[in-house]
Amino acid sequence: MQNYIYFFDEGRKELKHLLGGKGANLAEMKRIGLPVPAGFTVTTAACLAYFNAKQTMPPTLKAALPLAIERLEQETAKQLVGTTRPLLLSVRSGSVHSMPGMMDTILNLGLTDQSVLILANETNNPRFAFDCYRRLIQMFGNVVMGISSALFEEALTALKTEQQRARDTDLTSDDLQQLITTYKTIYRTQTGKDFPQDPLQQLMLAIEAVFDSWYNPRALTYRQLHHLADDLGTAVTIQEMVFGNMGDTSATGVCFTRNPSTGANEIFGEFLLNAQGEDVVAGIRTPLPMQSLQHIMPSLYATFSERIQLLETHYKDMQDVEFTIEKGQLYFLQTRNGKRTAAAQIHLLMTFLDEGLLTAAEVIERLSYDDIEAALHDTFNTAAIEALTPFAIGLPASPGAATGQLYFSATAAQAAAEHNIPVILARQETSPEDIAGMIASEAIITSRGGMTSHAAVVARGMGTACVCGCHTLLIDEVEKTLHYDNGILTEGDWLSVDGSTGKLYPQKIPLSPAVITPSFKRLMQVLSKRTHISVRANADTATDFAQALQFEASGIGLTRTEHMFFSPERLLEMRRLILATTAAERLVALNELEPHQTADFSALFRTAGSRPVTIRLLDPPLHEFLPTQLSEQQQLATQLNISPLLLTERLAALKESNPMMGHRGVRLAISYPAIYKMQVQAIVKSALQLQAEGITVTPEIMIPLIGSEAELNWMRHFLEQAIDEVLTDANKQLTYTIGTMIELPRACLIAGKLATTADFFSFGTNDLTQMVYGFSRDDSAGFLPEYIAKQLLPVDPFQTIDKDGVGQLMQQAILAAKATKPGIKIGVCGELGGEPLSVAYFEKIGVDYVSCSPYRVPLAKLALAKAALLNRTVN
Amino acid sequence: MQNYIYFFDEGRKELKHLLGGKGANLAEMKRIGLPVPAGFTVTTAACLAYFNAKQTMPPTLKAALPLAIERLEQETAKQLVGTTRPLLLSVRSGSVHSMPGMMDTILNLGLTDQSVLILANETNNPRFAFDCYRRLIQMFGNVVMGISSALFEEALTALKTEQQRARDTDLTSDDLQQLITTYKTIYRTQTGKDFPQDPLQQLMLAIEAVFDSWYNPRALTYRQLHHLADDLGTAVTIQEMVFGNMGDTSATGVCFTRNPSTGANEIFGEFLLNAQGEDVVAGIRTPLPMQSLQHIMPSLYATFSERIQLLETHYKDMQDVEFTIEKGQLYFLQTRNGKRTAAAQIHLLMTFLDEGLLTAAEVIERLSYDDIEAALHDTFNTAAIEALTPFAIGLPASPGAATGQLYFSATAAQAAAEHNIPVILARQETSPEDIAGMIASEAIITSRGGMTSHAAVVARGMGTACVCGCHTLLIDEVEKTLHYDNGILTEGDWLSVDGSTGKLYPQKIPLSPAVITPSFKRLMQVLSKRTHISVRANADTATDFAQALQFEASGIGLTRTEHMFFSPERLLEMRRLILATTAAERLVALNELEPHQTADFSALFRTAGSRPVTIRLLDPPLHEFLPTQLSEQQQLATQLNISPLLLTERLAALKESNPMMGHRGVRLAISYPAIYKMQVQAIVKSALQLQAEGITVTPEIMIPLIGSEAELNWMRHFLEQAIDEVLTDANKQLTYTIGTMIELPRACLIAGKLATTADFFSFGTNDLTQMVYGFSRDDSAGFLPEYIAKQLLPVDPFQTIDKDGVGQLMQQAILAAKATKPGIKIGVCGELGGEPLSVAYFEKIGVDYVSCSPYRVPLAKLALAKAALLNRTVN
Repeated sequence: MQNYIYFFDEGRKELKHLLGGKGANLAEMKRIGLPVPAGFTVTTAACLAYFNAKQTMPPTLKAALPLAIERLEQETAKQLVGTTRPLLLSVRSGSVHSMPGMMDTILNLGLTDQSVLILANETNNPRFAFDCYRRLIQMFGNVVMGISSALFEEALTALKTEQQRARDTDLTSDDLQQLITTYKTIYRTQTGKDFPQDPLQQLMLAIEAVFDSWYNPRALTYRQLHHLADDLGTAVTIQEMVFGNMGDTSATGVCFTRNPSTGANEIFGEFLLNAQGEDVVAGIRTPLPMQSLQHIMPSLYATFSERIQLLETHYKDMQDVEFTIEKGQLYFLQTRNGKRTAAAQIHLLMTFLDEGLLTAAEVIERLSYDDIEAALHDTFNTAAIEALTPFAIGLPASPGAATGQLYFSATAAQAAAEHNIPVILARQETSPEDIAGMIASEAIITSRGGMTSHAAVVARGMGTACVCGCHTLLIDEVEKTLHYDNGILTEGDWLSVDGSTGKLYPQKIPLSPAVITPSFKRLMQVLSKRTHISVRANADTATDFAQALQFEASGIGLTRTEHMFFSPERLLEMRRLILATTAAERLVALNELEPHQTADFSALFRTAGSRPVTIRLLDPPLHEFLPTQLSEQQQLATQLNISPLLLTERLAALKESNPMMGHRGVRLAISYPAIYKMQVQAIVKSALQLQAEGITVTPEIMIPLIGSEAELNWMRHFLEQAIDEVLTDANKQLTYTIGTMIELPRACLIAGKLATTADFFSFGTNDLTQMVYGFSRDDSAGFLPEYIAKQLLPVDPFQTIDKDGVGQLMQQAILAAKATKPGIKIGVCGELGGEPLSVAYFEKIGVDYVSCSPYRVPLAKLALAKAALLNRTVN
Repeated sequence: MQNYIYFFDEGRKELKHLLGGKGANLAEMKRIGLPVPAGFTVTTAACLAYFNAKQTMPPTLKAALPLAIERLEQETAKQLVGTTRPLLLSVRSGSVHSMPGMMDTILNLGLTDQSVLILANETNNPRFAFDCYRRLIQMFGNVVMGISSALFEEALTALKTEQQRARDTDLTSDDLQQLITTYKTIYRTQTGKDFPQDPLQQLMLAIEAVFDSWYNPRALTYRQLHHLADDLGTAVTIQEMVFGNMGDTSATGVCFTRNPSTGANEIFGEFLLNAQGEDVVAGIRTPLPMQSLQHIMPSLYATFSERIQLLETHYKDMQDVEFTIEKGQLYFLQTRNGKRTAAAQIHLLMTFLDEGLLTAAEVIERLSYDDIEAALHDTFNTAAIEALTPFAIGLPASPGAATGQLYFSATAAQAAAEHNIPVILARQETSPEDIAGMIASEAIITSRGGMTSHAAVVARGMGTACVCGCHTLLIDEVEKTLHYDNGILTEGDWLSVDGSTGKLYPQKIPLSPAVITPSFKRLMQVLSKRTHISVRANADTATDFAQALQFEASGIGLTRTEHMFFSPERLLEMRRLILATTAAERLVALNELEPHQTADFSALFRTAGSRPVTIRLLDPPLHEFLPTQLSEQQQLATQLNISPLLLTERLAALKESNPMMGHRGVRLAISYPAIYKMQVQAIVKSALQLQAEGITVTPEIMIPLIGSEAELNWMRHFLEQAIDEVLTDANKQLTYTIGTMIELPRACLIAGKLATTADFFSFGTNDLTQMVYGFSRDDSAGFLPEYIAKQLLPVDPFQTIDKDGVGQLMQQAILAAKATKPGIKIGVCGELGGEPLSVAYFEKIGVDYVSCSPYRVPLAKLALAKAALLNRTVN
């Protein structure tokens, strides 16, 4: 026969599924010797049996309950039904997962017209006893019988007015007795029955009410929202009441075993003398910090400290404890893992590791990606944000919170930032021309483009908050207005951006700034030691890479050389190059650009030291470097001394219908080989410079958008010749490797052949996903959200690897490549290289390293450490 | 020891590689008993030995040659070196492949100062003898010794002036003797030697000269151009001269065994009495038709007819014969397969099949794709075109020749066509808005876009000539000018377009119009019986399909429903639909469109009868239906009664960066399901209409751009519901199938899963190739030609299946699909479905049918028939 009742000494924390969180923890505290008020838990199994029997109490439970009460009466030497020492009970729901929305607590259960008098007498405190009783009728009436609270509140207010009492606490014992009579009338009128005078009947009804609350609408919604199963059921914990308001040797409080904001090793909490929990909530008296208890009750405080220390060691985590002191007697009413900030979480874990409380494996297991994300980025002040409503919600493209003033162009953003104005840059979409303005901004919002649009990729790279594809916004860059559903913002208006949720708020909101703590850095070192494959960073500048080194990146997996051409003087030369009609003109521009490139690469190499650096040769279509606005075009024509008509024609010729699949990547270099020649020569020159400084650099040169063997062979041969020129001139040796991006489906399909020529592969998962799905990353924001909503896609493939499609193709490519060249180094440098689920998958299919934007390096490391752990556990 | 000399009776036609085409055919004629002048062939092996020995005559050959001459002297009872009956020789080169650019013929070899007198005496015709001799010196001097012909011609002209002779034939015997003296002086002056008086030395030098001509620049260029190997060498045929100019019983002529223009069974040729071949060329006398010979020499004609009939039967092909009658004696000098028009070729093959001369397999083997292409399309009058220079060359996007007047807009093209002006439409690129103008045009030229651009695809579909991606042209649609390298054309100017070569000519050129002959239709039937898989047509209208039925298409493999929305009244409703902001507005437009769609489908079904019809639901991105020009936009705003601002905003919202990978295909229908609902309901309604007429239609409904299982499942379920609505309303049953396009790499990768839901697959090879390569078909014209030129791609993957990439992925998909659902029908409806090499490959990897534009159906059929033949031979 099923045992539906567990006394606290029969339970333990592992029985959470049966006893609920509260019940299991109470049992556990009892088990390890902590003082908890006597009690037992009706199991979740009983709840499920109740629903299986169409909401009828299981007979077993019905039979067992009086026996359990009898045992409780013995343990407490009180009587639920009797003439002395009334046993008052608290009845609380408790499911496996903490779940707001269900019925919570009924206090003082067991009181009746008769026992309230005994209690008044025995405590010599009639006011206390009658207050307990009227609260019971109110709670029971509302929670169990569904009577509107307002009816009780109205009666209370009427009485206070009538008797001219300002506050509840001003009510006398007589007032309360009168109120009890009124409450009982309300109860009878509303339910057609009298308030039950049988404590056991009260209990039975309360348990049923807790069960029923499992399926109330709020609970259902909550479970849907959090993907929790409906068939878990709730437990009911029944426990002797204890009271912190029985004089100056009584008290009640809540306490964290460590500081939940910082993780520092200090008791952190507050308490009220001679008070009950609700007094704390009412806020009439100011609670005292825990340290004061040491002075007031030194010996009890010593016991308390020792016991909560025991709890923390036992639970291996910071605890959030509720306690009551009844006449000098300490009781623990609840313990649970305490909520904390991300910084605190990381500090705690590292401290626990130091203290030997946790192993490294346990730290990794316990650490969540959200912890890392939150630790890396500013967040809004929690209290401030909760009351606010966003005016729009877009894609959470780059995490972090920001508050600032609105600007609509890169130029305006830069100008404002120079005056120390915090800038939020709003654009329909961004382009490489906007880079300087993006760098100057606190956050970027766009009305078009998806999670891998230019804005999103660049923002993530810089760790700047970004919300993309906010389709409900009408951003007019000329008029400098941002229309949203019910309003408008103009230049200079304050707004706030939450890049982690995609929410936009039309006001200034205080921030809690992120700081990379020493604990965070130590954590990165711990993670690095526990991953099988390495994590590199995508970094276009030495500054980017220095940031990534803070996170223990093992090298650079992707330098996008095109980003080096956007400062004004370089951009002009780049444009001269693009618009040149003869090879000679082209050479002039390239000669101007080469020293810049050499300097860029030297800075990167110097920062990287002996770490590997992969440099991708020019990738985007040329028109990305050209001005789109007429005024700029005219200016350019003047600067380059060419006719505006010729410029217009050239621009038209460079225009493409689908630039993503157009004349870009290696295709450009097949048409204009001099560009790549300049780039590899700059790489080699800077490597030789570093060599002269005593630093050995082994550049990894990467060719983008390879689609055929002949293309790769031709280009490799060409680059080798260009490199040999420099080496011969300098009379030096240099070790370097030449590899290819794998970003076209065809490259995957012929990977075995490409591997004969390539020293390494690096998967560009963005482009590969675009091609495999035929989803343009710039346009898919228009329909992808609907796909995700209708569950027509398992995941957003730009955010998490699509194993069936893209992943399968990658695996096929890796197998073929390794069959040809077993030692070939294989990396992933696309957007997914920093996404936890994807990274774990990449490791599984044989990737040697992943590379991602600096701020994603910690996530990737954690993912790999978790995966390594899992593999070890499985193997 | 190598035998370098084959007498005619030792050779046969199979020894072409040794004896060259001419030598082998002369031997063959001899072998089957036809009269040929005596002779022998020096083999190609001798030529190769000559080059291996650094241009020295192989000693074996040197030794064998006098012996061969001796034998020839015996056979002919003449003497090369001697005092009676001089043996005159012709020396001709001959390689395996007919090859202009090499030395051709030296006639009259063997004549010397001495033998010319004997010949004069014996023939009693000094003028004849001296003329022979002076020609020999001229030919030998030029061809063997490299003396400029001009020198000889000048001497001839000077003599004619001096002697006041109008024409060469007016020269007397004395004149010619004088000319011989002059020629010999020229010879000595130029070479430092006397004209050789030893006939054997003449012969040796002539053979060397023929050998040397193998590597002359023209020959080298020709071989490069035609991908012929350099190590084949040339043979040299040495043969007794016969003369058609020895009086009225002599004659010379050329003759086809059938009419080479039509293939009709009639002897077709001409001859001159008492003349030599060069007299025909000189054009002084008009040759007589062969039929006249019947009257002049009835018995000889009878023999002649009988013998050429023998030749044709022997060679199993129409022969092009050269003959000479010397004093009543008929000699055949050459036979080869006669050149013919495409129409003639097809008629001939069908006739030979009827006559039992060829089997069906032989017909298929012999028929070339060029024959089919040429038979289907107008061509330029060969004589007219040869003298002309194109002003630009673009991509040969749709075959056929056209001549007409230039127009720059669809509207202008339509207007001109209504006045019976033949129109050539020039556009930078075309869009679906241009359809009506394209239909009205004889040819289309564009300056942008590749072989699968809109213009190319639509033109091929209509069988209209098209030249695309003519980058050297500057087409200004506003100014109505077309600038080319050295000139300009304006509206109304005449020009001509060769869609088969990509050449454009700045003038009117006469055309030879194509006619689909009864033989062509019969050929299609023959082919249909000999293919393993069927060929359907891509047809958007009943007219298109009627055309395809002429070519025995087995059904419709692709109807692009979007093409049905471009007539003005439908376009307006389509635009209303797209710009609607509420579902109700959308419904208004759909209700307008539905009857049109129903009528379209009924017409298609009625034309198809019981043949299968696959209808693809709406595919292109919506902005393709919207006007691009401001004036049109303003007009549209008025028509739809919406504010121009709103229209502008909506247009901007619909704009995409990479529309090819954007919101299109099934993605549109996920967002706006009502569109597909209307389409399938229209399909079902028209099928029911046909059912009522007694025609059973089984529509095949095809969903484009599927990328995930969930997407297909959702859409199939949705369509079935929409169909059930109509069937329930009508209380009818209908069998239909629902399948999917496979055009995304991901669709290939999950084909096994898609096959559970799809009734059929149809590969869209255009899109698939675009995605696999990351080549936009609209942009790749900018770099693909360079790739092909640099041999960085094995083939243009939009023209021929890329087996390693796209093909591999297709094969993988087919295997997976058939593993899931063995009976699943798999088609190809992309551009490659009509390309011979691709089609054969598709059959091999398990495709059940291909579908292509109507004018490609015959090509596909031939390819499949050829493939079937090959398989049968191999198995």
